[in-house]
Amino acid sequence: MISNKMKNLVATSSTIRAMFEEGKRLSAIYGEENVFDYSLGNPNVEPPENIKIAINQILNKESANLIHGYMNNSGYEDVRTKIAKFINKKYNTNISHNNIVMTCGAAGGLNILLKTLLNPGDEVIVFAPFFGEYRNYVNNFDGELVVVPPDITTFEPNLQALTDKISSKTKAVIINSPNNPTGVVYSEKVMQDLAKILSEKEKELGTSIYLISDEPYREIVYDNVKVPYILKYYKNSFIGYSYSKSLSLPGERIGYIVANTDMDYFEDIMSSLNVANRILGFVNAPSLFQRVIAECLEAEVDVSIYQRNRDVLYDHLTAIGFSCIKPQGAFYLFPRTPIADDIKFCEEAKQFNLLLVPGSAFGCPGHIRLSYCISYEKIQNSLPAFEKLAKLYEVK
Amino acid sequence: MISNKMKNLVATSSTIRAMFEEGKRLSAIYGEENVFDYSLGNPNVEPPENIKIAINQILNKESANLIHGYMNNSGYEDVRTKIAKFINKKYNTNISHNNIVMTCGAAGGLNILLKTLLNPGDEVIVFAPFFGEYRNYVNNFDGELVVVPPDITTFEPNLQALTDKISSKTKAVIINSPNNPTGVVYSEKVMQDLAKILSEKEKELGTSIYLISDEPYREIVYDNVKVPYILKYYKNSFIGYSYSKSLSLPGERIGYIVANTDMDYFEDIMSSLNVANRILGFVNAPSLFQRVIAECLEAEVDVSIYQRNRDVLYDHLTAIGFSCIKPQGAFYLFPRTPIADDIKFCEEAKQFNLLLVPGSAFGCPGHIRLSYCISYEKIQNSLPAFEKLAKLYEVK
Repeated sequence: MISNKMKNLVATSSTIRAMFEEGKRLSAIYGEENVFDYSLGNPNVEPPENIKIAINQILNKESANLIHGYMNNSGYEDVRTKIAKFINKKYNTNISHNNIVMTCGAAGGLNILLKTLLNPGDEVIVFAPFFGEYRNYVNNFDGELVVVPPDITTFEPNLQALTDKISSKTKAVIINSPNNPTGVVYSEKVMQDLAKILSEKEKELGTSIYLISDEPYREIVYDNVKVPYILKYYKNSFIGYSYSKSLSLPGERIGYIVANTDMDYFEDIMSSLNVANRILGFVNAPSLFQRVIAECLEAEVDVSIYQRNRDVLYDHLTAIGFSCIKPQGAFYLFPRTPIADDIKFCEEAKQFNLLLVPGSAFGCPGHIRLSYCISYEKIQNSLPAFEKLAKLYEVK
Repeated sequence: MISNKMKNLVATSSTIRAMFEEGKRLSAIYGEENVFDYSLGNPNVEPPENIKIAINQILNKESANLIHGYMNNSGYEDVRTKIAKFINKKYNTNISHNNIVMTCGAAGGLNILLKTLLNPGDEVIVFAPFFGEYRNYVNNFDGELVVVPPDITTFEPNLQALTDKISSKTKAVIINSPNNPTGVVYSEKVMQDLAKILSEKEKELGTSIYLISDEPYREIVYDNVKVPYILKYYKNSFIGYSYSKSLSLPGERIGYIVANTDMDYFEDIMSSLNVANRILGFVNAPSLFQRVIAECLEAEVDVSIYQRNRDVLYDHLTAIGFSCIKPQGAFYLFPRTPIADDIKFCEEAKQFNLLLVPGSAFGCPGHIRLSYCISYEKIQNSLPAFEKLAKLYEVK
């Protein structure tokens, strides 16, 4: 028999698989081009050409044992140095390779971080709506997830509600901006206020409260919006970064954790991240891709492709009566559902071959998430389906 | 403050780091070529040329979004199918892609497996000497490691002692052949006897006892020795495979778990491995290297290089009086120490610039591990140092 923890998770995951199977079933009936799958966050924009060039150069220039070999569990020192310099230049920080641990994507990074921080029963605060995996990551280390209810007018962190949730058990707060599922970019003002609240609570409680900023979507932003760099606002802060979306490399599992030098217990934490990377079985971030991204720090995917998708979908949905905040980042829209039951709404949408994810999966019922990292053509073709869906509920 | 679990681990890991720093210190004084570091299991034999060819072909032939994109958390279905066919042909089994989950090396594989199997307090049995990380992997999921004492004449699993250790709490048994640290390949007879004991105990206790064979060294064997394929001997068995050593790709984190179809709770277990891969933060085994190894299933590193190292080192050490079983696989020797205190012995060895790992780290004091995956030249140059060390204890 599988473990008790996994029993529940396997049951949940079969819902996701059911959605996937439904997509395949609909495709078989109506043709793949007539099924509008807005459920997956799999980047459709091509990785930059630099990736291929970098791989070839590395294979031709460096020794195979170096490229594919073991290194320090925290990653190649020269790669971490290059990343640190890049960050320093871009964000006017003052970090070195010692602040960085290369990780198997942001997911691997968050896990080694929570392994490092959490004793059983410690609390981790998230702001609804939030990426559902945070619940599992915290549960991996027997922490308790504490959910701050959403502010559904702005979808910025609800700071008033946060204050009441912080206790002596609070070990960490996770934020995610640009946000999955709303696409909202948290403003500098909110980051400053958040930092102030956490600092004051640390003083009041005599504890360290670590702020973890999960940033796989940092580079996927529109309208010249700036994403505040959290290390500059709060002492006890980490960033979990990933190249999954910024370079369209989600399958390669490459990212890093960066930590503020002056945080509480910095040395212990960095040592622990190194060991956690090893003992959780990551051992190290994949070696070739550590070297690849070091050669591609300035590279970017073509964000205008996502922006065009956002614009057509946002404009159309709001025109036909859906209420939705205009996202300035990531590749998600998070419209309100015309009925309170978002799960029922997603079921109904299937009759128009629309595959959507209920907001409940993100701790925010009454909404749906649309991943618009699909082709522009498919989005255009899906617009009539949304019209039919809207009509069903007389959204207007 | 870091978590209680990590506190102890960070303390232990600083011992390993101290060894590494000692190596650097000695190198600075005596020159790198005069320091004989037998402490690391980092393959020095080059990956086969096919790896580079396969990478180039894949980059030129397939779409970048497929190569570097997300796939099922268990891995690409076509890759798993190719591996299953390869296994079926080589070992006369009858498995499909459904029996396989691609993992971030064997370390990632063992972790998702233990996450799947263990409730807190469940026991996992290992045979001393054993790879020290098993203790950490089991501890990650609050299991209890139960150590069967070594049989230091053969270094095969001590089956008599095993019988007494099995209880209703026994969830799994881990074996590792070719073995780290002894290099011993477990015989077919021992595998048959082991399977018999486990089956009988399952019947007696009314439980399922899963056998996990950790096999990163399967292809690193000498003298035409055969490594029994455990799926054929025991129903409830898994193999954790890795390409780290067989193709010299340890940094790339690529391997798989294969499970017997007729095992207890097969469907639940495979679903759970899939979900565990996701929620522990691996998400999936690195995508490009899944496709690469699928093109290199017949490829091999040049094992004769390791064999030459084994022969010169084994012959010399036994000639000067060390007692050591002749290993038939992996790239380790595990000689007895002339004094009971193996840690003290390793300390003493440093005066001759020899870096060795005490057997205590593998649950088997009174021995040392030598990783001979270093250059032949360095091994030859180190022989006088071993002579001086032997003389110190008048080994002869």
